[in-house]
Amino acid sequence: MLVILRPNTDEKSNEFIETWKFLNNLPEIQIKKHIISGKQQKLTEIYLIGDTSQIDREQIATLPVVERVIKISETYRIIGRHKDQNRAVGFDYKGIHFSQENLQIFAGLCAVDSREHTELMMKALQENGQYCTRMGAYKPRTNPYSFQGHGKNCLPYVFELAGKYGIKVIAMEVMHEKHIDEISSCLELTGYPTGVILQIGTRNIQNFELLKTIGRQKEFPVLLKRGFGITLSESLNAAEYLASEGNMNVIFCLRGIKTSLGDPHRNLVDFTHVPVVKRLTRMPVCIDPSHSVGSRDRAPDGLLEIFHATAQGIIAGANMILVDFHPNPKKALVDGPQALYLDELPIFLEDVRITRETYNNRCDLAKKLITHDTTL
Amino acid sequence: MLVILRPNTDEKSNEFIETWKFLNNLPEIQIKKHIISGKQQKLTEIYLIGDTSQIDREQIATLPVVERVIKISETYRIIGRHKDQNRAVGFDYKGIHFSQENLQIFAGLCAVDSREHTELMMKALQENGQYCTRMGAYKPRTNPYSFQGHGKNCLPYVFELAGKYGIKVIAMEVMHEKHIDEISSCLELTGYPTGVILQIGTRNIQNFELLKTIGRQKEFPVLLKRGFGITLSESLNAAEYLASEGNMNVIFCLRGIKTSLGDPHRNLVDFTHVPVVKRLTRMPVCIDPSHSVGSRDRAPDGLLEIFHATAQGIIAGANMILVDFHPNPKKALVDGPQALYLDELPIFLEDVRITRETYNNRCDLAKKLITHDTTL
Amino acid sequence: MLVILRPNTDEKSNEFIETWKFLNNLPEIQIKKHIISGKQQKLTEIYLIGDTSQIDREQIATLPVVERVIKISETYRIIGRHKDQNRAVGFDYKGIHFSQENLQIFAGLCAVDSREHTELMMKALQENGQYCTRMGAYKPRTNPYSFQGHGKNCLPYVFELAGKYGIKVIAMEVMHEKHIDEISSCLELTGYPTGVILQIGTRNIQNFELLKTIGRQKEFPVLLKRGFGITLSESLNAAEYLASEGNMNVIFCLRGIKTSLGDPHRNLVDFTHVPVVKRLTRMPVCIDPSHSVGSRDRAPDGLLEIFHATAQGIIAGANMILVDFHPNPKKALVDGPQALYLDELPIFLEDVRITRETYNNRCDLAKKLITHDTTL
Amino acid sequence: MLVILRPNTDEKSNEFIETWKFLNNLPEIQIKKHIISGKQQKLTEIYLIGDTSQIDREQIATLPVVERVIKISETYRIIGRHKDQNRAVGFDYKGIHFSQENLQIFAGLCAVDSREHTELMMKALQENGQYCTRMGAYKPRTNPYSFQGHGKNCLPYVFELAGKYGIKVIAMEVMHEKHIDEISSCLELTGYPTGVILQIGTRNIQNFELLKTIGRQKEFPVLLKRGFGITLSESLNAAEYLASEGNMNVIFCLRGIKTSLGDPHRNLVDFTHVPVVKRLTRMPVCIDPSHSVGSRDRAPDGLLEIFHATAQGIIAGANMILVDFHPNPKKALVDGPQALYLDELPIFLEDVRITRETYNNRCDLAKKLITHDTTL
Repeated sequence: MLVILRPNTDEKSNEFIETWKFLNNLPEIQIKKHIISGKQQKLTEIYLIGDTSQIDREQIATLPVVERVIKISETYRIIGRHKDQNRAVGFDYKGIHFSQENLQIFAGLCAVDSREHTELMMKALQENGQYCTRMGAYKPRTNPYSFQGHGKNCLPYVFELAGKYGIKVIAMEVMHEKHIDEISSCLELTGYPTGVILQIGTRNIQNFELLKTIGRQKEFPVLLKRGFGITLSESLNAAEYLASEGNMNVIFCLRGIKTSLGDPHRNLVDFTHVPVVKRLTRMPVCIDPSHSVGSRDRAPDGLLEIFHATAQGIIAGANMILVDFHPNPKKALVDGPQALYLDELPIFLEDVRITRETYNNRCDLAKKLITHDTTL
Repeated sequence: MLVILRPNTDEKSNEFIETWKFLNNLPEIQIKKHIISGKQQKLTEIYLIGDTSQIDREQIATLPVVERVIKISETYRIIGRHKDQNRAVGFDYKGIHFSQENLQIFAGLCAVDSREHTELMMKALQENGQYCTRMGAYKPRTNPYSFQGHGKNCLPYVFELAGKYGIKVIAMEVMHEKHIDEISSCLELTGYPTGVILQIGTRNIQNFELLKTIGRQKEFPVLLKRGFGITLSESLNAAEYLASEGNMNVIFCLRGIKTSLGDPHRNLVDFTHVPVVKRLTRMPVCIDPSHSVGSRDRAPDGLLEIFHATAQGIIAGANMILVDFHPNPKKALVDGPQALYLDELPIFLEDVRITRETYNNRCDLAKKLITHDTTL
Repeated sequence: MLVILRPNTDEKSNEFIETWKFLNNLPEIQIKKHIISGKQQKLTEIYLIGDTSQIDREQIATLPVVERVIKISETYRIIGRHKDQNRAVGFDYKGIHFSQENLQIFAGLCAVDSREHTELMMKALQENGQYCTRMGAYKPRTNPYSFQGHGKNCLPYVFELAGKYGIKVIAMEVMHEKHIDEISSCLELTGYPTGVILQIGTRNIQNFELLKTIGRQKEFPVLLKRGFGITLSESLNAAEYLASEGNMNVIFCLRGIKTSLGDPHRNLVDFTHVPVVKRLTRMPVCIDPSHSVGSRDRAPDGLLEIFHATAQGIIAGANMILVDFHPNPKKALVDGPQALYLDELPIFLEDVRITRETYNNRCDLAKKLITHDTTL
Repeated sequence: MLVILRPNTDEKSNEFIETWKFLNNLPEIQIKKHIISGKQQKLTEIYLIGDTSQIDREQIATLPVVERVIKISETYRIIGRHKDQNRAVGFDYKGIHFSQENLQIFAGLCAVDSREHTELMMKALQENGQYCTRMGAYKPRTNPYSFQGHGKNCLPYVFELAGKYGIKVIAMEVMHEKHIDEISSCLELTGYPTGVILQIGTRNIQNFELLKTIGRQKEFPVLLKRGFGITLSESLNAAEYLASEGNMNVIFCLRGIKTSLGDPHRNLVDFTHVPVVKRLTRMPVCIDPSHSVGSRDRAPDGLLEIFHATAQGIIAGANMILVDFHPNPKKALVDGPQALYLDELPIFLEDVRITRETYNNRCDLAKKLITHDTTL
């Protein structure tokens, strides 16, 4: 059961305290508070966990600051869309809004390999009006003898250069809780020149201890990548782990399905799940065309297949793009074959722009659709 | 090895006869002739099959009507794109052009269930400016006790109504060679009011005897659906079977991958392979969003997920759409849950139109892309 | 609903005729008769198909030759195990019994390539006490330019040699109804020196027209191979197609699942489904270790992995083995890398023998198991 | 490159020191030492990592304590079988030997739920002559609201009861490095009444930070479960992570493949990979029939399908079994439907015994097999 309080409820008010006490005294019910801070208002939701079948919903609805009481389904309690679809969605971080309503682009290096390449990348982003990027410091590698990323050693120059070139947010994968501390410390040390979104990779999506730790911190938002070999529902449950520990600022990222049926692509691109994730949950949905396609192959129409995959995500309403670029793909230490060249950046951005515009036009068209009762 | 003759070569000319004789006398080499009839010209290709390593290519190039001699790779000999990418592509049927350059829409009934529904469907198509449709007479069903389609009994009224409402081409699945005879006879009987594209379903993609039989007839073009559980390459080889028997008028259809990783969709939509099939072969590429998605689920943006899947195919250059509509989905005998309503047809068509327009704009954009040497 | 008649009921008797008339006059019910000929008795089953909810079961039970009336589930109506698990199972062909209770070995050539190899193979089988074999005349090949089998041309010497070396039954794949005629004619021509089991390959498992045709003939038993990329349940439904057309002499063959997760094997061996198919249906279960494993790799314990896969099928109760041997694997035209050598045949047979013996001992052990109610 | 020293080389000897110094001074080469302690001897291997192409192998072979120098392939450097297949294999822990040559059984609770159930389980094991068990304290769960295991709270009574009933080794999953500390501390606190094998679950197989941490400790051996949705090769690379950090006492566990093609089983059982893992690596191979099959379904022959899956692993040479039992499966908090009853334990053990005996007989048979050159 979910109790939604009136917007901007003050937690120090007597009304709030009275309501909280009442809920807290419900027998065998655990309560959890979640706060969603939007641009104009702060929304407080209180989850009642346990056997709520005996609870008098009417009575709770009459408590001082309560606006509404909602019965929620068992799956995706916090991240899910329930009957009430008007609840605040999305979040702000470093002045940037992330939600199911808009689109943010994170072009950048799959793996930070040198200060020089990092600077070239950041500079190109600024010149093209970009303020977000991806930068891999910690790299999960199948083979223990492969390059594992520069780790915390590269953080100082990555953050410093981000500040120099006006990059506000960096998406960066972490594989262990100590990485969060290293990022946090380095940000402090360098004077917070930029922000970080913690990325959880596909291989760690069921590393529940990492999910819990990241869910408990509120400093950084989280980008969670769909898992290998598990169902979409199981991957969404991993997002619920984060939210159940307190961090609701979660973006869900589609990155292709690992199967030989996707050949010759690296993975079978799964961006048709963009509207599905938006329907099942309240999370913004990111796409990673680089890891999905995995090559710079070019269609006969002249467009790279990574551009096509990107457009397929955008035309169906994706809210974020994670895409690999590199100043010199042939020298990249990780995933060079799928990196785009810097001179392709302006065309990529223009391609995204016109496709997003068409998506918006498609949404206008949707208003003309009649709703049919599809219960057969 | 492939010998391309000069456009519009006359097979009765002495030059042609001389060339043919020479090739036909090459020891241990089998020759096969393929004719591609385009709008402006007729192109004749002669394939030399066998061990061609000892053949003097220079000598053949000097034969009377020979334009060019091309060494072809072993895979997809006929349907493939080889180094020479300028060969004529596509074909005309009943005045309609099918190629990698344009887009045709085949909305219609998954399964013909009654004359009344068929007429309502055809009428709606005509009112919306459509001249192609899909109509299932023979239905492959997993369970032997399920409705198996009206078969040849419904053909007379299907063809007659097609003629009445100006439908020029019907895509219709066949599962046995006798179905082709039934279709052919009924068309003759009814005075050829329409045309038919023979559809080979996903379950018959490696029914090599059926492929050979259909490949040998030239009356009807073929729509070949990607197979369950086999690789893309294996599915493309099935198209090569058709072409190797003589029928090059083949359209390849993507229809999703059968895997639980596609849940909650019926299949995992694979339309990112649209540009891949266009890159590997010369076939027009069709998409089937209805069987891929399998439901009428609707995204929060108001668009049905079938619309989104369709747009994803179009934005990446699909050349044909096969989509299920029904005048009364709740009464459909097969796949009702995925059928669109007739009142959704005009919006669907408008959605396709604006997305295709954006695809064309994206292609213009592609001209600005620099070609990088991607050999690492 | 299923009506089981008394064993050895004479169809010319008045009792039978009376019963048949009664059932045949039930409104809106279609009836189908199936006869199971065992060693000691002939069993007649009559299926009532349609809405049987209004039928008076008691009344039917009192009809002259009726032994029992059984309500059956919708899935696998004929091939399935229903509540009544004591019905006759299995069949005899050419004096050989096929059932869930025993084990038959079909070692032989994947593809017949020459008379000489065929004779060497048959001779080796006879010398090792074998009376069944596999011989591929018609070969389904992914690539249209690969060797497609010698087809009907090799049938005369294959059948003649079988007769010469005492081979009673040959498992032989067919891909088209004309192949059945060719086999039937050639057997007649050569004086029926041997018998044939028609094999339906994995690629044709949902070639429903072929299933129907083969189901309608009663001359030959059928070996049906599990399909690529479809569920076990869908594959079992294909067997139901055969049975629903009248042929119940069906053996179901497991041959591995096509997935890259099976690497380095050609397929992911699925022989743990041996007891599952025996639990869900009444069909004998065959295993094909050669196509599952696909190589002659050898474990450190000295046994080939094909031997291990075979033992895994046997230890769990498999009833038939289809295994590739070749007098000279390096010269085999199809699947040479997975063929066993003739000198490995006696050891293979001994391995099968001791493993089957242990399976029988395991069954004795099972009698000590207490039955727990597992309804949770 | 791998340098194998003479057995029982003393690291304090001058010869060793001289050899070590020489290797340590090789330019741009990193060296790593691995010690394999067998029953009769201690074997020291030194790995040279980096570009070894310029190293003079002959020269190294003449160094004081060097027995042999082996060029190793890049894959599975430490865990792999290279040309030299006679290297010591296996390890001893708590007086129990683990290797590719023998078989150990770990029956026990999937999840520890109460002291009472734990004691009943341990008691039953002792009564049946068992000295190993599985006990889940930390449970990874897909849903954040499911029971997550009693964690460290149950360790004291689990260890104490193990001591009381003569259990020498417990396989126990860990999901975070802190769990290792908790186990280690509790063992110390309770006076080391038993030993523990750290189990890494399928969901953490590419949690590389956890692999590194566990690889660095030498107190506990490791049981690594094959991963979801990744290839066998990628799973084996995870084992190489452990070994590359120093812990070579690794057992690899097969537990089925997650795919709907395994239905009605929980997973598609993959035990045909038992001989494959033994061929590719030096690790003992464990099977987990309970999580593979996932139900108590019973074949018509009277044996539970879990028994059949177990026998399939054993007959192909498995070295360890992890199997779920429970004193009262209906009350189990996790995976009750797949737990065996205590009264099934003696029959299960007898089934394993006779099947293992047959495996040994099969190995004797293998000695008669001729080795064919299979290079085609």
